[in-house]
Amino acid sequence: MARFVEDKINQNIIDRKELNSRFIENCSTYNSFLELEKKAFQEGHISRKYKELMAPSISIVTKCEPCIERHVQQAYLAGASDEEIYETLDVAIEMGGGPAAAYSRFALNALDFHKKTNSKL
Amino acid sequence: MARFVEDKINQNIIDRKELNSRFIENCSTYNSFLELEKKAFQEGHISRKYKELMAPSISIVTKCEPCIERHVQQAYLAGASDEEIYETLDVAIEMGGGPAAAYSRFALNALDFHKKTNSKL
Amino acid sequence: MARFVEDKINQNIIDRKELNSRFIENCSTYNSFLELEKKAFQEGHISRKYKELMAPSISIVTKCEPCIERHVQQAYLAGASDEEIYETLDVAIEMGGGPAAAYSRFALNALDFHKKTNSKL
Amino acid sequence: MARFVEDKINQNIIDRKELNSRFIENCSTYNSFLELEKKAFQEGHISRKYKELMAPSISIVTKCEPCIERHVQQAYLAGASDEEIYETLDVAIEMGGGPAAAYSRFALNALDFHKKTNSKL
Amino acid sequence: MARFVEDKINQNIIDRKELNSRFIENCSTYNSFLELEKKAFQEGHISRKYKELMAPSISIVTKCEPCIERHVQQAYLAGASDEEIYETLDVAIEMGGGPAAAYSRFALNALDFHKKTNSKL
Amino acid sequence: MARFVEDKINQNIIDRKELNSRFIENCSTYNSFLELEKKAFQEGHISRKYKELMAPSISIVTKCEPCIERHVQQAYLAGASDEEIYETLDVAIEMGGGPAAAYSRFALNALDFHKKTNSKL
Repeated sequence: MARFVEDKINQNIIDRKELNSRFIENCSTYNSFLELEKKAFQEGHISRKYKELMAPSISIVTKCEPCIERHVQQAYLAGASDEEIYETLDVAIEMGGGPAAAYSRFALNALDFHKKTNSKL
Repeated sequence: MARFVEDKINQNIIDRKELNSRFIENCSTYNSFLELEKKAFQEGHISRKYKELMAPSISIVTKCEPCIERHVQQAYLAGASDEEIYETLDVAIEMGGGPAAAYSRFALNALDFHKKTNSKL
Repeated sequence: MARFVEDKINQNIIDRKELNSRFIENCSTYNSFLELEKKAFQEGHISRKYKELMAPSISIVTKCEPCIERHVQQAYLAGASDEEIYETLDVAIEMGGGPAAAYSRFALNALDFHKKTNSKL
Repeated sequence: MARFVEDKINQNIIDRKELNSRFIENCSTYNSFLELEKKAFQEGHISRKYKELMAPSISIVTKCEPCIERHVQQAYLAGASDEEIYETLDVAIEMGGGPAAAYSRFALNALDFHKKTNSKL
Repeated sequence: MARFVEDKINQNIIDRKELNSRFIENCSTYNSFLELEKKAFQEGHISRKYKELMAPSISIVTKCEPCIERHVQQAYLAGASDEEIYETLDVAIEMGGGPAAAYSRFALNALDFHKKTNSKL
Repeated sequence: MARFVEDKINQNIIDRKELNSRFIENCSTYNSFLELEKKAFQEGHISRKYKELMAPSISIVTKCEPCIERHVQQAYLAGASDEEIYETLDVAIEMGGGPAAAYSRFALNALDFHKKTNSKL
């Protein structure tokens, strides 16, 4: 993996870890947001794995790199196979055309990164 | 259901049916697009139902009403339960905030419409 | 005001009123979302009026008609003057170009509608 | 053409005509915006026709219906042929996937409408 | 602050400074755009500070990093307090969900950067 | 050109070259997508050059950096002059406002890069 994309992913992870407490302390919406997030991705009639695969499909189409990185990791940790991730990219490409194909490359970089590091942060 | 939203959904269905042949005849990309679409939503490691639930989650976040209407219908026809559709709205709301809550209303209208008419067009 | 846009606005209001309870009953995220929404727009270091003017500026640039309608109403009810609303459209046009100018027309229609009906729903 | 889409297009045209003067009088940005718009689409190294075809390609991908309607009309009035408009839809579909295919239907409706009415407003 | 995000912000500032003259010389729209920009953010019925806080709220929801960086700086220079910036993030999170929370991290990085450097470029 | 943007462009090019085969092998949609892409940009009633200029106008408005980089290169290789590229930025700025002006800077960086390297990859 080239250094630039690795630095970008590491920056995402640093931001997620280091800035979280400032949001909790200073943004009145943040505790509700964290609760909303937890409920959205909790095990339900749809399993957590499929919910975490919806998230990268949305993130690719909306070109949100920090979201792609986070939710590819979460899908991987929830047990999504490579095949399931590629099929998620298929849906994203249908819903987003060429730009989704371009951002799917970042999704693969994020998947490779998280498989290698296997971090949960 | 109020008349305006019903007219809007009917217009979508009319456009889908009546304009399709003009795209096939005149757009050089269209046959490839239809093939891409078929492959994206085909039964695979992820079942067709879950793929068709990804699509409304994306469509709500990206504010695409004709897509919401179409893919809510397809998810319903692929066997998605009400509970699964509501959990899909949960993911969309997490990924899209207030605007996703607003477009989720249209998703419910589309679901009601297609359950009532049970059309496959 | 032409009938089509009036019907569209009325549909929004109907959906907001009639579907809310279905979301509360069925979407696990919805109570957290309502709490988040309340906190985001509460009186604070920034007054409620200015927060409710931010919302249409965002909604115009992101082409969210139900959001434009709702937040123009809320800004009006929070005491925003016509001049303040026009200056909000100025910011939206800077941040969104021609499409923001087009959606600003809907914002004016929504403002006219809510000034006339003076409803709080 | 179905009535709903015709009403929607007519509403666009009414808004464009009737609200313009309110923007000129009340938005400090509006005269600069109109000048910017005129310069963006003026005859240049790229002819007006090709610039007016860029605009619907952007508008379809960004799901801006009032923009699609306006710029399909302008492209038609600037001499774009049906073949050129279909090829513009091809580019939009490549850059926007399924949602662009859906909004291309509205582009065809707008083209049909403007060819029939041949209005310049 | 990690090096990657600092390099990204510095790149933005370099681009803004060094490319501006090429746009003025070569883009026929650019002088109108600069005038439009000046008018949109000028002191008015809404003070410059509140207009410059609208801009990051829009920029976060639309995932525009160069815009976030620029307008967080401008809001800071126009006298916005930390509390006001956090409340702006609250509105952005309501209007943009999880992705807005992610881009709010970049807004905090940009705020830290500009408070430290206190540059006006 | 500053190092950060050069690294970003190089990362894009690496991703495009190195990940392509993984998409072809693993994404069932990918061959249809490549065919669709080829047809969208083929010589037709609109020449390839003008189609490749539409693509950066869309990419700038939709804030897709990998797309901007790719299609600015393709437009350049298809014979687009500097003047034609600047006029494309004019259309993008009209359709996207300030954020389009910001992403137009990246388009100029990408143009400079590809003129210097003259690579076709």
